[in-house]
Amino acid sequence: MQKALDYAESHAQQFQDELNDLIRIPSISTDPAYKADVKQAADWLITHLQAMGLETELIEKVGHHPLVFAQWLGAGEQARTVLIYGHYDVQPAQTSDGWDTDPFEPVIKDGVLYARGSTDDKGQAFAHLKAVEAILKAEGRLPVNVKILLEGEEESGGEHIEDYVPAHAEKFSADVCVISDSSMTQPEQPVILNGLRGNTGFEVTLYGPKQDLHSGAYGGTVQNPIHALVELLGKLHDAEGRITVPGFYDAVRTLNEGERREIAETEITEDEWRDSTGASQPFGEPVFTLSEQIGARPTLELTGIGGGYFERGFKNIVPQKAWAKISIRLVPDQDPATVQKQVIDFLRQHVPVGVTLEVSIPNNRAGAPAILVNTDNPAMQAAIRAYTQGWGAAPIFRREGGSIPIVGIFQNMLHMPVILMGFGLNSDGLHGPNEHFDLRLFHRGIRTAIHFLYETAKM
Amino acid sequence: MQKALDYAESHAQQFQDELNDLIRIPSISTDPAYKADVKQAADWLITHLQAMGLETELIEKVGHHPLVFAQWLGAGEQARTVLIYGHYDVQPAQTSDGWDTDPFEPVIKDGVLYARGSTDDKGQAFAHLKAVEAILKAEGRLPVNVKILLEGEEESGGEHIEDYVPAHAEKFSADVCVISDSSMTQPEQPVILNGLRGNTGFEVTLYGPKQDLHSGAYGGTVQNPIHALVELLGKLHDAEGRITVPGFYDAVRTLNEGERREIAETEITEDEWRDSTGASQPFGEPVFTLSEQIGARPTLELTGIGGGYFERGFKNIVPQKAWAKISIRLVPDQDPATVQKQVIDFLRQHVPVGVTLEVSIPNNRAGAPAILVNTDNPAMQAAIRAYTQGWGAAPIFRREGGSIPIVGIFQNMLHMPVILMGFGLNSDGLHGPNEHFDLRLFHRGIRTAIHFLYETAKM
Repeated sequence: MQKALDYAESHAQQFQDELNDLIRIPSISTDPAYKADVKQAADWLITHLQAMGLETELIEKVGHHPLVFAQWLGAGEQARTVLIYGHYDVQPAQTSDGWDTDPFEPVIKDGVLYARGSTDDKGQAFAHLKAVEAILKAEGRLPVNVKILLEGEEESGGEHIEDYVPAHAEKFSADVCVISDSSMTQPEQPVILNGLRGNTGFEVTLYGPKQDLHSGAYGGTVQNPIHALVELLGKLHDAEGRITVPGFYDAVRTLNEGERREIAETEITEDEWRDSTGASQPFGEPVFTLSEQIGARPTLELTGIGGGYFERGFKNIVPQKAWAKISIRLVPDQDPATVQKQVIDFLRQHVPVGVTLEVSIPNNRAGAPAILVNTDNPAMQAAIRAYTQGWGAAPIFRREGGSIPIVGIFQNMLHMPVILMGFGLNSDGLHGPNEHFDLRLFHRGIRTAIHFLYETAKM
Repeated sequence: MQKALDYAESHAQQFQDELNDLIRIPSISTDPAYKADVKQAADWLITHLQAMGLETELIEKVGHHPLVFAQWLGAGEQARTVLIYGHYDVQPAQTSDGWDTDPFEPVIKDGVLYARGSTDDKGQAFAHLKAVEAILKAEGRLPVNVKILLEGEEESGGEHIEDYVPAHAEKFSADVCVISDSSMTQPEQPVILNGLRGNTGFEVTLYGPKQDLHSGAYGGTVQNPIHALVELLGKLHDAEGRITVPGFYDAVRTLNEGERREIAETEITEDEWRDSTGASQPFGEPVFTLSEQIGARPTLELTGIGGGYFERGFKNIVPQKAWAKISIRLVPDQDPATVQKQVIDFLRQHVPVGVTLEVSIPNNRAGAPAILVNTDNPAMQAAIRAYTQGWGAAPIFRREGGSIPIVGIFQNMLHMPVILMGFGLNSDGLHGPNEHFDLRLFHRGIRTAIHFLYETAKM
C-alpha cells in the first residue's frame, strides 16, 4: 500500500492536469444545449478508465446522457467488491453569474482550484479514480474488486439511473458503495454523512391576459400575473419561515434527545454560517438549531422566479404570465408524492382571481425520499479507519440537507451500505459562482480512498 | 385641398412602402445594444424630411438618442403654426416573445400591417408627415407653418426632451400641437384624448447571501431573497387590487357626476375588454367602471420580476438576490415625487429580516404628472372638424390610462393646446407581440391630418 501512496504523491501534478482536462468540458446536463459536451465528458472518462486498465462500458439511451461504467474484477470471487459512484455532469455556470474567471477554464490560486465541477463532483469523484490508478500502477493489482459508476444526469434530476440500477442489480452488486459528493466544515475534521434529505419540486406558471398589455392602457382593470404570483407564493410561508401548507409537517419525525445530541456534535456556529453564506443573520424555524434545520427539517424554497420584463431598462406592460420554480427538501418519513400533491393542491386552492395556474412536474416524477444511513456497519468502520490514516483524523457523522436520490437505491434496493465520504468544504461554493476545491484536499482524498480500498478488503 | 387628398390616395402604396422602410430599422431606445439602430432611424427621417422639402436639423447630444426636427415656415409670420410631435423609437421586441413573424420585418395580412412600431408610433406619426407631403406636392405650399419634432427616447423615459423643449421654447413655439400616439375602440368612432395619466417608477432589489447557495446545504437557515420579495411586494395591494401604501390616494380627485357621465360616454363593455385583453374577468377597485379605472384612478403595476434560475430545467439554489420593476400611473393632482417617495418609504419600512433593499430610480427622475387637456378650445374645434371630414365621424373625448410626459411640457410650459388625435385601435397590441396597424386607418389618418392643417388655418 505504501507504494500506492508514494505513486499518488509523485504523480500529483499529472493527476491535477488530468482533472483540469475533464473540468474544461462544460458537461451541463440540465441545459439541452450542452448535450454534446456531456457526451464528450463521458467519452473522455471511458478513454481514461480504459487507459487505467479497467474494463469499460458506455451505457447510452438510458436517459438524456450516458452512464459511464468500469470495473476491475481481478481480486477474485472471494474478495470484497467496492462500488464507487460519482457524477461527471455539472450545474449551469456562466461568467455573468458573478464568476471572477471563466467557470470552465480551471484557475489555481494559492493551491485552490476554481472551476465549475471542481468540487461537485468531478474533483471528488476523480480522487477515487486516481486512488484506483495509483494502486494498480504501484502494486499491479487491487486488494478488492472495484466497480465504478459515473452518472451524467445527477444535476438534472437523475431519474433515469433510478430505474436502470435496480433493473441491473447484479451488474452493480457490491459489498459497499462509496460516494464522495459532500463536504465538511473544517479540513481537520472529516465528516461522513449518515443522513440526506429527499426532494421534490415543480414549476408553476400563472397566466393572465392573452399577451403582454400596455400598462397604461389596461393597468387597473386586469389582474397582473406577477401580482397574483406574489400573492399566491406569499401564502406558502409564515413570517418566521414555517411552511403553511396543511399536512406538510405531519410525517416529520420529532427529534429525540439522542438525535439532537448527535446532531449537535457537528453544529456549525453562526460565525461559520455567516462566513459561508455572507447573509446577515440566520432565518428559519426558531426552535431548531442550524444543523437541525439543515439536516432534520424539511424546506420549501423558491429557486427561481420570473415574469414581465427583466432586461435593462423598463417596459410598461402588464405581462401575460409569471412563473416560479419550487424545490422542496424532505426528511425521513415524508413521502415525496404526498408532499408534492399537498403543495400543488394548496396552490390550486389559493389561485387569485383573474389568472389560471399551470403546474409542470419535471419528468412527471414525485422525487426522492430522505434517507438515514446505518452507522454501525463494518463498511462504516472501514471508512473511519481510512479517514484516520489517509486524512489524518477520525470522521464525525452528520445529517446533510442536500439530496442524492441514488443513495436510496443503493441502500434500499441493492442492500449495500453507502458511505458518503466527503472531501470538499461547505464553503466551496458549489452550485454558485467561483466554485472551488482545495487541491490539498484532493490529494488527501486520494490517500483516503487508497486506504479505504485496503480497509474494505479486511471487512 | 382636394388635390392633396387625391395625391394621398394615388400615392397610398408608396407611402406604405416608405413606412415599411422605417419600421425595418429596430430603433429600440430602451436597450443600449440598439443605439446605432436608433441613430439610423433618425438619419432616415432627416433624409426623408429633406426630400419632402422641409428644413431639417438632427439634434444630437441632448440625450442618448437624437431628436429629429424639421420645419416649413413658408406660410408667413401671420399664419398659424402647427407643431407635430411623434416618436420614432419603439418598445423591445423579439420573435420569442410570442410574435408570429419577425417583429422588424413588416407583414401585411388582410390590409393590416404587423410589426413593432406599426402603430406605436411610427405608423401614426408617419400619417402626419405624409399629409404634409401630399399638400406640398399637390399644392406647392401648406396653409399653415409646420414644425415637426420626432423623439427617439419616448419608450425609454423621454426625460431629455423634457429639459430641451422648455429651454428652446421659441424654436418649438406654435399655436397648436398635434400628437397621434393613441387609440380608439371602434374605427367608426374616433376619439380625442383629453386626459392622460402621469407616471413614476423604480426598480427594487433584495440582497440576501453573498452568492447563490446550494438549497440543500443551506435551505432552511437562510432568508431566501425570492421569499422576501414575494412577502414585501404582496403588501402593496389588497385582495381587490387597492394600493395599500399610506397616503397613496390622498391627492386623488373624487370624480363628480359630470365627470363620471363624460367618462361613461366612452365606457368599454366587458366583452370589448375581454377581446382586447384575453383575460378571464376584469380585476380592480370594484366601485369604479373600467374607463374610470383606466383614466381616472392611479395604479401600481409590477412590470417585471426576476430572481434565481429561470432558464429551462432546475438549479437547486437559494439565490443571492431577487428584483422587481414597479411602474406607477398617476392621476391629476398626484405629485410624482411625493408618490414615488411614499411607495419607497413603505417598502423600506417593510423589508423582511435577512435581506437588504436597494432602490434604483431610472435617471433619478421623479416622473411626470397627469394632465387634463382643455376641450373648449379653437384648436380642439378644428380637430373635431378634421375628424368629421377626414375620418368620416365626429370624435368623442376620453381620458387615457397611458402617459406622454411631453404633453405636459407643451401644454403647461409652451402654453399651446395639445390635440391627442389617435389613429390606432385599442386592440393593436402595442408594447406586446404582434403589434399591428390597420392600413385603412393609416390612410384615414393621412386624410384627417390633411384636413386638420387646413382647419387650423381657419382658427
